Amino acid sequence: MENNNTDLMRMIQTKFSRLSKGQKLIAEYILKHYDKAAFMTAAKLGASVGVSESTVVRFANQLGYEGYPELQKALQELIKNKLTTAQRIELSNDFIIPNNALKGVLKSDIENIRATMEKINYEAFESTVNSILNSKKIYIVGLRSSAALADFLGFYLNLILDNVKIVSYGMSDIFEQMLTLGEGDCVIGIGFPRYAMRTVETLNYAKSRGADVVAITDSVLSPLATKADYVLIAESNMASFVDSLVAPLSVINALIIAVGLKEKDKISKTFTELEQVWQEYQIYSYKTNKDINKF
Amino acid sequence: MENNNTDLMRMIQTKFSRLSKGQKLIAEYILKHYDKAAFMTAAKLGASVGVSESTVVRFANQLGYEGYPELQKALQELIKNKLTTAQRIELSNDFIIPNNALKGVLKSDIENIRATMEKINYEAFESTVNSILNSKKIYIVGLRSSAALADFLGFYLNLILDNVKIVSYGMSDIFEQMLTLGEGDCVIGIGFPRYAMRTVETLNYAKSRGADVVAITDSVLSPLATKADYVLIAESNMASFVDSLVAPLSVINALIIAVGLKEKDKISKTFTELEQVWQEYQIYSYKTNKDINKF
Amino acid sequence: MENNNTDLMRMIQTKFSRLSKGQKLIAEYILKHYDKAAFMTAAKLGASVGVSESTVVRFANQLGYEGYPELQKALQELIKNKLTTAQRIELSNDFIIPNNALKGVLKSDIENIRATMEKINYEAFESTVNSILNSKKIYIVGLRSSAALADFLGFYLNLILDNVKIVSYGMSDIFEQMLTLGEGDCVIGIGFPRYAMRTVETLNYAKSRGADVVAITDSVLSPLATKADYVLIAESNMASFVDSLVAPLSVINALIIAVGLKEKDKISKTFTELEQVWQEYQIYSYKTNKDINKF
Amino acid sequence: MENNNTDLMRMIQTKFSRLSKGQKLIAEYILKHYDKAAFMTAAKLGASVGVSESTVVRFANQLGYEGYPELQKALQELIKNKLTTAQRIELSNDFIIPNNALKGVLKSDIENIRATMEKINYEAFESTVNSILNSKKIYIVGLRSSAALADFLGFYLNLILDNVKIVSYGMSDIFEQMLTLGEGDCVIGIGFPRYAMRTVETLNYAKSRGADVVAITDSVLSPLATKADYVLIAESNMASFVDSLVAPLSVINALIIAVGLKEKDKISKTFTELEQVWQEYQIYSYKTNKDINKF
Repeated sequence: MENNNTDLMRMIQTKFSRLSKGQKLIAEYILKHYDKAAFMTAAKLGASVGVSESTVVRFANQLGYEGYPELQKALQELIKNKLTTAQRIELSNDFIIPNNALKGVLKSDIENIRATMEKINYEAFESTVNSILNSKKIYIVGLRSSAALADFLGFYLNLILDNVKIVSYGMSDIFEQMLTLGEGDCVIGIGFPRYAMRTVETLNYAKSRGADVVAITDSVLSPLATKADYVLIAESNMASFVDSLVAPLSVINALIIAVGLKEKDKISKTFTELEQVWQEYQIYSYKTNKDINKF
Repeated sequence: MENNNTDLMRMIQTKFSRLSKGQKLIAEYILKHYDKAAFMTAAKLGASVGVSESTVVRFANQLGYEGYPELQKALQELIKNKLTTAQRIELSNDFIIPNNALKGVLKSDIENIRATMEKINYEAFESTVNSILNSKKIYIVGLRSSAALADFLGFYLNLILDNVKIVSYGMSDIFEQMLTLGEGDCVIGIGFPRYAMRTVETLNYAKSRGADVVAITDSVLSPLATKADYVLIAESNMASFVDSLVAPLSVINALIIAVGLKEKDKISKTFTELEQVWQEYQIYSYKTNKDINKF
Repeated sequence: MENNNTDLMRMIQTKFSRLSKGQKLIAEYILKHYDKAAFMTAAKLGASVGVSESTVVRFANQLGYEGYPELQKALQELIKNKLTTAQRIELSNDFIIPNNALKGVLKSDIENIRATMEKINYEAFESTVNSILNSKKIYIVGLRSSAALADFLGFYLNLILDNVKIVSYGMSDIFEQMLTLGEGDCVIGIGFPRYAMRTVETLNYAKSRGADVVAITDSVLSPLATKADYVLIAESNMASFVDSLVAPLSVINALIIAVGLKEKDKISKTFTELEQVWQEYQIYSYKTNKDINKF
Repeated sequence: MENNNTDLMRMIQTKFSRLSKGQKLIAEYILKHYDKAAFMTAAKLGASVGVSESTVVRFANQLGYEGYPELQKALQELIKNKLTTAQRIELSNDFIIPNNALKGVLKSDIENIRATMEKINYEAFESTVNSILNSKKIYIVGLRSSAALADFLGFYLNLILDNVKIVSYGMSDIFEQMLTLGEGDCVIGIGFPRYAMRTVETLNYAKSRGADVVAITDSVLSPLATKADYVLIAESNMASFVDSLVAPLSVINALIIAVGLKEKDKISKTFTELEQVWQEYQIYSYKTNKDINKF
């Protein structure tokens, strides 16, 4: 079934009349207290409204879920962005066994990329590549933890193109760094829960100035998506206090490579020049591979 | 078979006496010109030394490879760090179909994480967590594209601990930022091909000062690994001019979560305080979720 | 006479009853429209309220000023911080002849330093030096154009002491960079008109946490001075849209040198070590002075 | 007399044959040990070579100096850039009385600006203003402590013009930030003793690319001046381990104002727009001036 959050609430409303009396009590409770319900067991949720655990399970089936855990997961998705970090730390124990954090996180990130392969809009991706290649100026904005992604994207695009600017906090305010923004420019905003307010404001400003707006974010419901011409969805689920930017980084890899391959001749030339600079100023370490030299 | 690169060269040498005359010609050619051989077809490699394609295939079998493609892949691995970026751009066409860069990259990154799950040393991971928790001061260094990873790691560790410092290029030189470094401190170096020289120098300096050294890198052969007490291997393969930092970022996620969970009580308190700061200064955007409010 | 701005307004009120009828009209006009009056000639101000130019001059004398220009200057001081930058650009033509901007600015900056020598509190300076030397941790905050001063101060103090942190906009919020701030710490805030809001908030926060607060600013009326334990006044007058940070930088020079001289033995050792680092990594250029080498 | 350092050494050589026997001993000593001689009294210098103090004084006269202090000052100038910071700390006691560092430094900085008024080339200043106004792109580079000046200049020029870029250490190398540099561009380098190597290299690179080069530095002998089309001299003397960037900052003030006044209409518009942004996002603090509001 569709996993769209507001749909869940709408669906409960739509199906309401066909529910049993006990199920209606559950439905009402969830509509009012979805944030609490999301973390109750079936038994506890039942007890809260005075019905049996099995009534709760049937209620989940009625909505199209295989069982109560699936319904609960949908509810948790729904409220994810409303949870404070402190609440998320509290919850993280239930999902990850500390002793196996490494394996748990790596697996979870594989799932994030896999989900991204399904959710991402391939046409929006192509449109983004074209917007980057055809815009007068490209601005990249990502704040808080997403600054790491913005910096990575900017680092490579700056080697490929000569009209790319990373905007971020500094001596000058973000808007001062975009004073001449207008039609024909492209603004790429990167933001994941918990969305940085300033990134949202920046995309709104960009839209009001007539620029192309690209959002790299986790959902079409994200506040970054509202004003975006193109939305690239990348899954950032992580059952802990850290959001995972792994799938978003993979999408950004793809963006850099797709832009690079369309400018292949130009960048071959650039990198040949850079190779000399890198050697002259010893930017990179060159492996000695002493064993090989013996041959 | 073991995929260790220098082992391949050693193996060719060891098995040399047992090779057929034609195979010896191939062996000599590879020992001298492995960088060219790595990009030849079996037919072309055979032609270069005057033997048949099937002799080349048998040579690969003799070394323990299922076929020539496996041998070729091992050779390519071997030279990866010696390729210039310009050469890598040239090669990238053969691996990735531009029209499908997105899917190709996402798949490739899933493979990177999967490979990391197999290669990474779980004990080194635990030792790193302990070193972070027990050191007087933790320094994080990652330059060039790896700066994105260093910043991400530092961003979160700074919320959990009060003795973490990201060192990077700025007004002050990197060494000036580590003037008091010594025993009892921990330095985490992050670097992937092409390894930034300065990161390697920083880890060497750290070791000479008696600090604990952690390397987050792609191979035990990495120049960052040489002086490290703990090496966390994360796969960064990407058949293009960009190295993928996706698997490394996933490992860093795990590191943050593992450290965080061991300081759970402390950070619950910190984040409860921060929540107030975030609200007062409107750091984060709060979804309005208007549809939900209608219920 | 005292040049305190609010005193001017109070004085006009106090002396009001003793003024002539015509002078009272001027007084009322100024109390209401001081922002306009500040930029009127004596003749125009007189015309505005229907009195003669000489009445305006006598009014100035009555308040204790030698002439109208002195009164006007006091009014301009008063409104300086309420002028927008656009208004200041408009005004700058009347003060500086573009063709001689260079000489005009240099002279004006000499005056700024001279005024600072008279205004600055030498005891507050000594107390600041002691606070820097005796605090557990020293935080330096300066935003917008004052970030240049904060960075300069931090650059040198970091070479002398090992407990200095420049806090500024970045991935982490300013408050997140001061999570453990408390008693025994020292926060140095640097801000000049137009004062950055965030610097003021930071000093308020610092005071609420019990830290020592030092303000380097242009006036005891500055919003940075409100919560400061020690206020170092440096003149920043510049009759244009740029505030001059020249005198503040000179005060910061003095601060660095005063702290350095009290830690002379320690920094001699540090710099001897650094000299080797600087040479090894070729941080500085060494003049070849080839002519000299010939001798 | 001309204060050019290498001239001093040449002059000693030229006049050598006409010197008395005792004076020749002094000359030889200075040619070999000018770095030591520069810090000896006349008496001590005499004793070192076995002549009287008055012979040393006559030697100074012979070279055209009014007395020995003038000769000594010339020698000190000569070696200034060859002194290590540690030596300078050692020396600083003799110049500045710690208890009066503040007054001493402020006075010294007034002298720096006064000397700058005399030394600076007013035509070079005008040419710099024109180059900034007419170039396709303006790059500003200042490293180490001079980064504070580069940031300040860039902060304001970015508000006036839309083609200004501060280049500095970061994820990308300085040269990567100037990949497209060429004729029609302008590079402003800022550097004072001890000159950052990288700034010198950057100006050399800029010249090789055909860009206009401006050096803001302390002397025509500075390594930054070598390749510069326009040299703006600002005095940075400070008898301690810190070089004073006060006079350079004053020159930069003048540069900003001179450029701003030539773009007056444009920046009036810009700042009017910015004023709204600043208010909307509460960038600046607005004094409440409660006393005034009472009237």
